[in-house]
Amino acid sequence: MKAQDYPLAMRELIECLCRLPGTGRRSAERLALWLLQHGKADARDLSTALIRAVEQTTACPRCGFFSTDGELCAACADPTRDTSLLCVVEQPTDVLPIERSGSYHGLYHCLGGKVSPLDGVMPEQLSIPQLLDRVREQPGCEVILALGSDVEGDATALYLAEQLGELPCTISRIAQGMPAGAGLSQADSITLLRAIQGRTKI
Amino acid sequence: MKAQDYPLAMRELIECLCRLPGTGRRSAERLALWLLQHGKADARDLSTALIRAVEQTTACPRCGFFSTDGELCAACADPTRDTSLLCVVEQPTDVLPIERSGSYHGLYHCLGGKVSPLDGVMPEQLSIPQLLDRVREQPGCEVILALGSDVEGDATALYLAEQLGELPCTISRIAQGMPAGAGLSQADSITLLRAIQGRTKI
Repeated sequence: MKAQDYPLAMRELIECLCRLPGTGRRSAERLALWLLQHGKADARDLSTALIRAVEQTTACPRCGFFSTDGELCAACADPTRDTSLLCVVEQPTDVLPIERSGSYHGLYHCLGGKVSPLDGVMPEQLSIPQLLDRVREQPGCEVILALGSDVEGDATALYLAEQLGELPCTISRIAQGMPAGAGLSQADSITLLRAIQGRTKI
Repeated sequence: MKAQDYPLAMRELIECLCRLPGTGRRSAERLALWLLQHGKADARDLSTALIRAVEQTTACPRCGFFSTDGELCAACADPTRDTSLLCVVEQPTDVLPIERSGSYHGLYHCLGGKVSPLDGVMPEQLSIPQLLDRVREQPGCEVILALGSDVEGDATALYLAEQLGELPCTISRIAQGMPAGAGLSQADSITLLRAIQGRTKI
């Protein structure tokens, strides 16, 4: 019998930590040792927080943003929101930067991804039917497409514009152009092209 | 009511992940999102492994190495070990590299640290009385001091040599010199000094 390795429970913890993104075996070993030698209380707290977050965090049944225990999310449950504005984003995480910017007080719709045939993501896998239903229930609303400015974001925006075209709504897309605080010398040519195409009168 | 932040359970998980060494707020957020979006099963496994490791992993009551549920560790419980050899290390983690080197088949004693008055670690806080008891119970044994080759390691070795001097044992210290595979040009002057002082006849 050799003592070349940690006891079973420690080895299992190291295995689990290894599965986290960006964590190799050495980092997992260091983390496990730290948790057992200096952070036993932290380890218990983390164990509880993990199971609670996994069990309580759900997708909002209406818009797909993060919510708790299957209820409506903070935005959908807010009666002061402008229900005639519907901002379409790719992922629930895209809602946070828009909310933090403080520039928008409407509702959201998280598609759950973007159309990307190369990655095997087809329109059927996104929550597009739900979006169309929401637009039908709110005639005259404005659908703001806040998708990424990459090829897949463009493709998704085109596809959505086509699907939404027959419904009683206006469609807009967030502006593409120079990011705040950037100089012209750092801008790539596509950003500059779009900034010039989207120029506004002053 | 704003949706500027994650639901409570997610925020608590992010707080707990932030407390891990080397994990900032952005990394903790990314980890939490990954766990909730792609790794729900991994999160459950990690939660179970954490609580199990914290509850089951104990220090061996005899030598201080990692063991399970208060039992003797793999080395102390091994009847084939040479009980006349007692290797003194600073931390339980120091046992693993010695075991993995395959060069030693005796017992261990983990001090739990090294004498370091500047960090507030005095000899009384280390498991030195337990070491002296073990040496008294095994007259004629050899105590191998496998401490770090820094100032505190030297101080601890000197202190232990003094304490052990009156007991019926021989005392040795692991060799200091050139590490395997290193060229002379990379060696610092203290390493070279010790390598020359500790030269052996061939």
